[in-house]
Amino acid sequence: MADEAAKGALHGLRVIDLTRVLSGPFCTMILGDLGADVIKVETPRGDPVRGQGTMTDGVSGYFAGFNRNKRSVVLDLYSEGGKTALRRLLSDADVLVENFRPGTLDKLGLSAEVLQALNPRLIVASVNGYGSSGPHAGRPAFDFIAQAMSGFMGVNGAADGAPMRAAPPISDLVAGLYAALGVVAAVVGRQRTGQGQTVEVAMVNSLVSMMAYLASEYFATGRVPQRTGNDHPLVYPYGLFDCADGQIAVANSHDEILRRFLDRLDLGWIMSDPRYETNAGRMARREELRELINSRMAGQPRAHWLQVLNAAGVPCGEVKDLAQVFADPQIAAQDMVIEADWQDGPSLKMPGFPVKLGTTPCTVHRPVPRLGGHTAEILAEVGFAPDQIAALVQAGAVGPGDDP
Amino acid sequence: MADEAAKGALHGLRVIDLTRVLSGPFCTMILGDLGADVIKVETPRGDPVRGQGTMTDGVSGYFAGFNRNKRSVVLDLYSEGGKTALRRLLSDADVLVENFRPGTLDKLGLSAEVLQALNPRLIVASVNGYGSSGPHAGRPAFDFIAQAMSGFMGVNGAADGAPMRAAPPISDLVAGLYAALGVVAAVVGRQRTGQGQTVEVAMVNSLVSMMAYLASEYFATGRVPQRTGNDHPLVYPYGLFDCADGQIAVANSHDEILRRFLDRLDLGWIMSDPRYETNAGRMARREELRELINSRMAGQPRAHWLQVLNAAGVPCGEVKDLAQVFADPQIAAQDMVIEADWQDGPSLKMPGFPVKLGTTPCTVHRPVPRLGGHTAEILAEVGFAPDQIAALVQAGAVGPGDDP
Repeated sequence: MADEAAKGALHGLRVIDLTRVLSGPFCTMILGDLGADVIKVETPRGDPVRGQGTMTDGVSGYFAGFNRNKRSVVLDLYSEGGKTALRRLLSDADVLVENFRPGTLDKLGLSAEVLQALNPRLIVASVNGYGSSGPHAGRPAFDFIAQAMSGFMGVNGAADGAPMRAAPPISDLVAGLYAALGVVAAVVGRQRTGQGQTVEVAMVNSLVSMMAYLASEYFATGRVPQRTGNDHPLVYPYGLFDCADGQIAVANSHDEILRRFLDRLDLGWIMSDPRYETNAGRMARREELRELINSRMAGQPRAHWLQVLNAAGVPCGEVKDLAQVFADPQIAAQDMVIEADWQDGPSLKMPGFPVKLGTTPCTVHRPVPRLGGHTAEILAEVGFAPDQIAALVQAGAVGPGDDP
Repeated sequence: MADEAAKGALHGLRVIDLTRVLSGPFCTMILGDLGADVIKVETPRGDPVRGQGTMTDGVSGYFAGFNRNKRSVVLDLYSEGGKTALRRLLSDADVLVENFRPGTLDKLGLSAEVLQALNPRLIVASVNGYGSSGPHAGRPAFDFIAQAMSGFMGVNGAADGAPMRAAPPISDLVAGLYAALGVVAAVVGRQRTGQGQTVEVAMVNSLVSMMAYLASEYFATGRVPQRTGNDHPLVYPYGLFDCADGQIAVANSHDEILRRFLDRLDLGWIMSDPRYETNAGRMARREELRELINSRMAGQPRAHWLQVLNAAGVPCGEVKDLAQVFADPQIAAQDMVIEADWQDGPSLKMPGFPVKLGTTPCTVHRPVPRLGGHTAEILAEVGFAPDQIAALVQAGAVGPGDDP
């Protein structure tokens, strides 16, 4: 395992992880996947996600999917012993990541000034809901609320339906990903400056940054983008079409691709019919075109059209459910299902690594940790003697050791 | 401007950007925002996005929102002169980013072996649809299709509705973000190994990695996650509720928060009523509870409940449209609307930087480039003499210079 870790791009980087639930643990897991040594600091009760989702042999697959490649140390941060141990950990670490509500770190006695004095090379990353300044800074945050407040829900959904949240917790995940990027960029910056710095990522800001052309169209026109469901707001035909055995998605992103699509359906004449030759005409006669196209596609099953259209360079695919996704030979070929062991427990499946590095690939180099499964090991690494560790455990300041 | 750039975390990193449209340009813009020197290599016709979306004073806000902090050089990569110029650029760059279909770089004479020989420190990043291996590697890709093939659409949408794409092109954006992370991680890795490496990110894989607990629940139970709209699949009450003047989103993520929520509505008794005291009971009597809650909330406007509930630590917020988002004082306080100049053109608004770095902040240090707006400048930087540049322009191998 140590050999595997040695290969990671971020090998040698030590991350102290005070995060729990989702955005922060996703950030630190990504850093761990890339080879960092991530030490998850948990309260004696542990990250609440340990108790969430369906249990397999007593452990949570939900927790596993956000916490592979970490070690766990239990510290009671409200005790003196726990605070001392955390300071010792931070004094020779590279990165601290936290996702408390703004101000909590100060309350724990770890203000920016204290951290700077403790370790000027420390990169201090915070993931939160709204950012640490501004009128909403103190509000409690949650993915669903960030999706609502960022404008994402307002544009997501059917044209005649309600604003719709995305099913995955995308504001947590995108914020966690931006935070991982910010941390690694700060590591690069530190090589020039010799100094750490703060990195802050807010969930709402993260989704706002992804409004893409919806935002630029709003700024250019002053018109508020509306929900358009699966139809493209500006281009037709584009969307879901009915084959003999179900629908496929087709993205005719420009006229040349549209021409190839219609040719394969023996509907090439559409592009030279005055009613349809411009995109504006096609948008105005969307329903007529939809019927024309569906009536052709209904003559063959999905597999036929996927083969014919992909071969013609027309982007298309099936709308897969997760069982179909994880059974897709392409997903298998891309190693997008991996297994990670739970420390002294079962092996669990989870989605794989989307970043493929040629010579320092992401690997599972650490199991999913039991709560406090590395307390004694980690305290020893930062210089606590066995009797000191025993005393801390006795006082309730640190949690169970390797052999609870 | 040079002073501003000097402050960026990635200052000194030179990125040669062969990407167009969305995923790749988003990746390289993020690297530019963080301080890298990004050279966008365009064909004589330019990135097609230059002609897309609403034009302001003749320029595309859509293009601007993905291409600030870059310089543009026009090279005809099918000409000998263009190829020579690109090789010269690559020989002293740090990073190449491309988002062609797999195999295109080889066809341009830039196989992995050639690039390795040219510049062993070069990090070569590729963003594509499905990955460069596996049965679908050669398929054309597009955001809508990646959303369908990744399982995202299958879980996104109303319980009684169709699978629904997200309105923003999230597979492009998430893949671009992962690619930026992969590049910066490879820069850190290079400091240890002295060598560049390949970085590959596929759009489908990127979204698969974000299936979060939906994936872990599938692996744990074998049951395919269904669409649940704005309701949480596992917890109730949670979702949109009706105030006197419209809806707000409320996330009662656990019992303690739910208790506070119900107390503020004078519905505290619900938690001790045997019908509702367990989450299972509440899930089974969802519609009854929805009516009870809505009838209370209808007595006051949204502003009242937002104030009362946020103060009580209950995550809640309005479902904002983009006009409301960009008018939100919190978004202003977080600098989430910025302006960037078009080179010799208008200033355009766009979403700001979600990664807030304390001492090396992201800045707009380069305008949005005109097509080929820096051709002569960049060719001179890599050692071409004025008469050589003139000859290349004459031959059509490179595009317009600074003063077309």
